[in-house]
Amino acid sequence: MSESISHYSWAGEPLADDQIGLLAGICSTRAIRRYANEPVPEKDLRDILFGATRAPSGSNRQPFRFVVLTDSARARQAKALIGEAARALWAEKFKRDGYAEGSGGDAQSPKARMARTMDQYVQGFEKAPVLILPCLVRYREPTPAEGGSVYPAVQNLLLAARAIGYGGVITGFHHQVDAELKALLDIPEAVFIAATVTLGKPAGKHGPVRRRPMAELVYGDQWSQAPDWAIDPPGTRYTRAGPPTKAAT
Amino acid sequence: MSESISHYSWAGEPLADDQIGLLAGICSTRAIRRYANEPVPEKDLRDILFGATRAPSGSNRQPFRFVVLTDSARARQAKALIGEAARALWAEKFKRDGYAEGSGGDAQSPKARMARTMDQYVQGFEKAPVLILPCLVRYREPTPAEGGSVYPAVQNLLLAARAIGYGGVITGFHHQVDAELKALLDIPEAVFIAATVTLGKPAGKHGPVRRRPMAELVYGDQWSQAPDWAIDPPGTRYTRAGPPTKAAT
Repeated sequence: MSESISHYSWAGEPLADDQIGLLAGICSTRAIRRYANEPVPEKDLRDILFGATRAPSGSNRQPFRFVVLTDSARARQAKALIGEAARALWAEKFKRDGYAEGSGGDAQSPKARMARTMDQYVQGFEKAPVLILPCLVRYREPTPAEGGSVYPAVQNLLLAARAIGYGGVITGFHHQVDAELKALLDIPEAVFIAATVTLGKPAGKHGPVRRRPMAELVYGDQWSQAPDWAIDPPGTRYTRAGPPTKAAT
Repeated sequence: MSESISHYSWAGEPLADDQIGLLAGICSTRAIRRYANEPVPEKDLRDILFGATRAPSGSNRQPFRFVVLTDSARARQAKALIGEAARALWAEKFKRDGYAEGSGGDAQSPKARMARTMDQYVQGFEKAPVLILPCLVRYREPTPAEGGSVYPAVQNLLLAARAIGYGGVITGFHHQVDAELKALLDIPEAVFIAATVTLGKPAGKHGPVRRRPMAELVYGDQWSQAPDWAIDPPGTRYTRAGPPTKAAT
């Protein structure tokens, strides 16, 4: 590696200084689907991926791998493959989840705004500056708990990106082209591609996220019963979000 | 909820101020298995669980739930159930993964230290101040990708805890007593208990984590080939960690 270091004037630089605190950052990292048309410098990719790979995993096996695609011919092919799948899947979901119905008819409703955002996202999918495929190298048969060794790293990835001024979103658009992607990128058959993450400089911005009141998500000694202390901090906004029938991230 | 608020003098207080930055925090959150013998105040539980519930999930469905157990009779029963399972599982793993063999014979080796930490952890499991069971409410048949809607929230939980001076660890010790736990805590059969997380004030401290060099975990256009920029930042330590044969978190 020491030879590579000399290729980069920045390689001796430490991680970027923080502009936001840990808890404040956790509470204000939005799913970012619109990006400025700017590449992400390699020093920033290093910082983001370093943060991602600091995640915990079962027995610290570190079975997570990140395939990072920017603007090579292969990267463009991978983006086109997933972009095409994304457009087909979104068209299907738009119908199935009734995005045009109910409040979807009101252009200012969260539902209609979400639909526009998704529409723009899939139409411009290939223009996302960075496409990352977080993968899991399995060492045993799939179990529902195996995600515990890859999705914490995906969350670290999104938070690290946010820490240095970027944003991204987790999607599952790759699942339908899993075999084609593996062939294109030499990903072994047995590897699980856990997510599609796109990243870039936000065209919009980070801020408070839309989540249900914590009393609906946090229980005490009994299922469905919130402890008395589970009260959103004062000033918490956007607590009416919900599943696709309301469609409002 | 407005009535509950009056029970707590702190309920009108904002989230705790940050003492550490977002990226710095991500890169220095260790698995904490030894805790000071102190309860976690409810205001701190609020802050931690608020952070946890800000996580993303598929279509923002927010299917994650957190069962938070501290010191009630039920909480103690749940801790005892999992503690017993933990001791049996650890005894089995100690043998299977050869913790007494090789460098395990050297009391100062990472392997031997890991074994001692785990031993203390499972022996004192019931003394962990807080036991949290992050759960996934499924809305469709299990898929490997469903973890993407619960483990990001688990990672947020650990990071939020670290942000305000606590620490925790993810384990899978509950799997063997899943049915008993569900009966004890009225958790519906169809819910997936995704992890066991214990939390408390660290007896040790947070700091750099033990992970492989990022060039082993981050690839470019081709599987197994790191991009030139994937170089650990200067000063990165503890890069020889690995799976249980080396057993060294």
